[in-house]
Amino acid sequence: MALAQNRYGKSRVRLVRVKRHADRHDFQEWSVEILLQGDFESCFTDGDNSKILATDTMKNTVYSLARDSAATCMEEFGKEMVDFLLRRNPQVTHAEVSISEKVWERVEANGKRHPTTFVQSSGERAVTRVSRAPGARLAIRSGLENLVIMKTAGSGFEGYIQDSLTTLPPTADRLFGTALKAGWEYGTEIVAYAAVRAKIREILLAEFSAHESKSVQHTLYAMGEGVLKQIPEVNEIELTMPNLHCLLVDLSRFGQTNPNEIFVPTDEPHGYIEATVRR
Amino acid sequence: MALAQNRYGKSRVRLVRVKRHADRHDFQEWSVEILLQGDFESCFTDGDNSKILATDTMKNTVYSLARDSAATCMEEFGKEMVDFLLRRNPQVTHAEVSISEKVWERVEANGKRHPTTFVQSSGERAVTRVSRAPGARLAIRSGLENLVIMKTAGSGFEGYIQDSLTTLPPTADRLFGTALKAGWEYGTEIVAYAAVRAKIREILLAEFSAHESKSVQHTLYAMGEGVLKQIPEVNEIELTMPNLHCLLVDLSRFGQTNPNEIFVPTDEPHGYIEATVRR
Amino acid sequence: MALAQNRYGKSRVRLVRVKRHADRHDFQEWSVEILLQGDFESCFTDGDNSKILATDTMKNTVYSLARDSAATCMEEFGKEMVDFLLRRNPQVTHAEVSISEKVWERVEANGKRHPTTFVQSSGERAVTRVSRAPGARLAIRSGLENLVIMKTAGSGFEGYIQDSLTTLPPTADRLFGTALKAGWEYGTEIVAYAAVRAKIREILLAEFSAHESKSVQHTLYAMGEGVLKQIPEVNEIELTMPNLHCLLVDLSRFGQTNPNEIFVPTDEPHGYIEATVRR
Amino acid sequence: MALAQNRYGKSRVRLVRVKRHADRHDFQEWSVEILLQGDFESCFTDGDNSKILATDTMKNTVYSLARDSAATCMEEFGKEMVDFLLRRNPQVTHAEVSISEKVWERVEANGKRHPTTFVQSSGERAVTRVSRAPGARLAIRSGLENLVIMKTAGSGFEGYIQDSLTTLPPTADRLFGTALKAGWEYGTEIVAYAAVRAKIREILLAEFSAHESKSVQHTLYAMGEGVLKQIPEVNEIELTMPNLHCLLVDLSRFGQTNPNEIFVPTDEPHGYIEATVRR
Repeated sequence: MALAQNRYGKSRVRLVRVKRHADRHDFQEWSVEILLQGDFESCFTDGDNSKILATDTMKNTVYSLARDSAATCMEEFGKEMVDFLLRRNPQVTHAEVSISEKVWERVEANGKRHPTTFVQSSGERAVTRVSRAPGARLAIRSGLENLVIMKTAGSGFEGYIQDSLTTLPPTADRLFGTALKAGWEYGTEIVAYAAVRAKIREILLAEFSAHESKSVQHTLYAMGEGVLKQIPEVNEIELTMPNLHCLLVDLSRFGQTNPNEIFVPTDEPHGYIEATVRR
Repeated sequence: MALAQNRYGKSRVRLVRVKRHADRHDFQEWSVEILLQGDFESCFTDGDNSKILATDTMKNTVYSLARDSAATCMEEFGKEMVDFLLRRNPQVTHAEVSISEKVWERVEANGKRHPTTFVQSSGERAVTRVSRAPGARLAIRSGLENLVIMKTAGSGFEGYIQDSLTTLPPTADRLFGTALKAGWEYGTEIVAYAAVRAKIREILLAEFSAHESKSVQHTLYAMGEGVLKQIPEVNEIELTMPNLHCLLVDLSRFGQTNPNEIFVPTDEPHGYIEATVRR
Repeated sequence: MALAQNRYGKSRVRLVRVKRHADRHDFQEWSVEILLQGDFESCFTDGDNSKILATDTMKNTVYSLARDSAATCMEEFGKEMVDFLLRRNPQVTHAEVSISEKVWERVEANGKRHPTTFVQSSGERAVTRVSRAPGARLAIRSGLENLVIMKTAGSGFEGYIQDSLTTLPPTADRLFGTALKAGWEYGTEIVAYAAVRAKIREILLAEFSAHESKSVQHTLYAMGEGVLKQIPEVNEIELTMPNLHCLLVDLSRFGQTNPNEIFVPTDEPHGYIEATVRR
Repeated sequence: MALAQNRYGKSRVRLVRVKRHADRHDFQEWSVEILLQGDFESCFTDGDNSKILATDTMKNTVYSLARDSAATCMEEFGKEMVDFLLRRNPQVTHAEVSISEKVWERVEANGKRHPTTFVQSSGERAVTRVSRAPGARLAIRSGLENLVIMKTAGSGFEGYIQDSLTTLPPTADRLFGTALKAGWEYGTEIVAYAAVRAKIREILLAEFSAHESKSVQHTLYAMGEGVLKQIPEVNEIELTMPNLHCLLVDLSRFGQTNPNEIFVPTDEPHGYIEATVRR
């Protein structure tokens, strides 16, 4: 009997940071997860907690570091957390800090952006995962989740296998929607994370909009390729694109036509495509 | 033994409408619920289905009417549905159609709004409930749900009851967040629904931003009053404002100050305030 | 401009009670909501908090009362809470306490029920809502939510209206599933709540099982009638039965029959039936 | 630019199977996911769909195979699906079918288990993932998810690292709750899956109940070891145990003691422990 892979930590440590400038406040809301690997076998096998950093202490660490942190984005705060944990815990052989950010923007009231009032403007999340083994190089994987997008033109799906169980009719004109998840690896440690993130998001949206899509796969690849071509800091990008199917309603039963105007959006079942594009 | 209040219908009838103009598409996504009351007692007591409009037929009605509808907003489509159902079903004494709309906006790509690509830009929902008894006047109650907003200045909570179970410290400076739900009744049947809705949302945001808040109740009332003052079409407005509490973290245990910068946002427990303001 | 209906309070106050007997522990998990109405107008209109019981204090009240409470069930604890709040807050004209209980049962290990280990055995919730105005009689409405049940025999749906938008085929043999919600009013203040609740649940399941169903309405009524006939403490019962539709898959396209064996369960759209049966 | 890892398929294909015996029905509800890897590069890079099995066809495959299947459990149906997909799609180099089963049990009415009425008795899920490359051996990983369990005795947490950010007090008597997720690999292809699954679940519950726990890790290991000792068919087991924290309420502020009786259960933040135990 042996202990194989194991890790532990604290999940869903929620944090709001308010930076109080003279003329405005900045507002950030993060959810942080810390996961450690290391020399913890005796805890499992003998109930020896002497090498265990309590997960409650990890939570305290998030708040204490956040107070003194100069980090302006999640990636930088993740670095601070990982290095702090490794420095104080020699029994740890790998530390990983994942952060998910809700999107808050300033409220526009009477034509002006309000300095101290905010609106949560999307179900989208910005995410990052920073990890390091002692002495090794930082790995930073950033991304976004739940960017829900839809094309009503420039999308078809034809020429696929027709077997005895195939009933889907080929079409040169369908709706194509997805809840995009993207994750990219940085090849270097010094990056203007927020600016690069904004640029990647812009490219993903532009490629999705412009692409003449023959399949989800086809568009996914074009989006990944677009990012790698324009963003030298990124080595590889993984894109996950579940289909948000919109099914054309058969109105002929009621003596009506339906020239691609009336659809039923469905959550299940749904197609699922994921791929990594690499330089 | 007697049958008292009863109603039935179809929930979560999802609908996407694409309007295909020469230079652009319009995209709307609705979830429709139909609820009928009427002379249905024999169905309950004797299993007599002869007066029952199948809920599957209600679903078909949504799609068939949507195809021919000239409605440009939910409220107008709700009216068409209610009148259609009453006209064809004399056994119905009250028909109600509720619609919830996801917010989709055009993608901005390369500085331009794309004509046929959309992004779901918020977890907010626009809602309406249209109802009528045969021969009676339409009742239209519109609203919005899950407008998540936060003030980092201009909010305190002091002077409340101090009893033996009170531990909350009074404060002149706290974060004030809520997931706003608003519902308003129109006093007339002819309204520019979409334009009025946009204006109401703008007023709610402006009042929330500008208010020097002494409590959630205090701000809620100012917001309701603001709408009634500026929107003559609205007779009354109900506002529901659950607190999105952000708790100040006690960092003194770690020798640190916390001048209202580091907070824990929490989902539970949460304060809950609702009120109706009426002309 | 006037303040109409208003109420406020605390939601999702979560509580675990462990009763430590010599030979076993009892374990209960509740979520409590308190809602007050009263003389609070000046809070809304003037920001005067002097009559406001802070919702944080309500939360403390739950924990403090729970410690000393002799209540063995939610209904009794709800009574204690309501009376405590009314006694200490003369400005309150109506107090309401709602409680939702998760179902935990003892783990069976090695053929015996373990005295101090528990398993959350269902997604079902037991609920109650206790309310009172000063000097008035207590109203107690108890119920259950999310009791997910399914009949594979004894259910048909035929003889309903056939209009131009009807496509559903009548059937004498369909699956009938629902996530039952039930709420009943007690006509008297002294009831063996836990025992009566168990008996009501048993009757609802027995009637659902035995009924030859001609529609959801038909079975709903039989279930309500069954409860009223056997439980004198209950005056009326409201039952809510959303359809958990299981759609027969058309396998003829693949040269196969499907004698009511293979179905697609769907969450949306769904039929929705609610009714109150009264003595 | 190169395509690296990629896979695609259909998620959330929901299926109800009713087996109609003379004296009773059997009822199963599954959600199926199919994921394929293979020679699909030209689809991504050139929009060539000629090797693509439409995900809609995968959905049809689930229903068609289910009709003729002799499988009595998820694992056997997963095998049939994988072999069917590999046989008909030479371009596929790896096929994976995951199934999640809701727990339905017969209703007990009037002291008897009803032959054709069922109740969904838990939020727990039984799961399996069956996968194979052409010519290679089947891999079957089965498990369970969301088995929510709680110990009110026999659990402490002491002796962990005390650093400058540690505030958690050590305790010899705490509540220990978790939403257990378990996954085990079978070392052989012929297994009585349902019987072994039931036995594993029983062992996990018995070990959790009996263990004198010094930490989550300590109990997790005992549970994994218990399974491996008694179930020769299993080579390794992974257990994931997020903490369902119950925090002792400080009632001293109200002049009350709290001898481990009144707790606040919380969802976030939460500790998270995962480990694999291997023979």
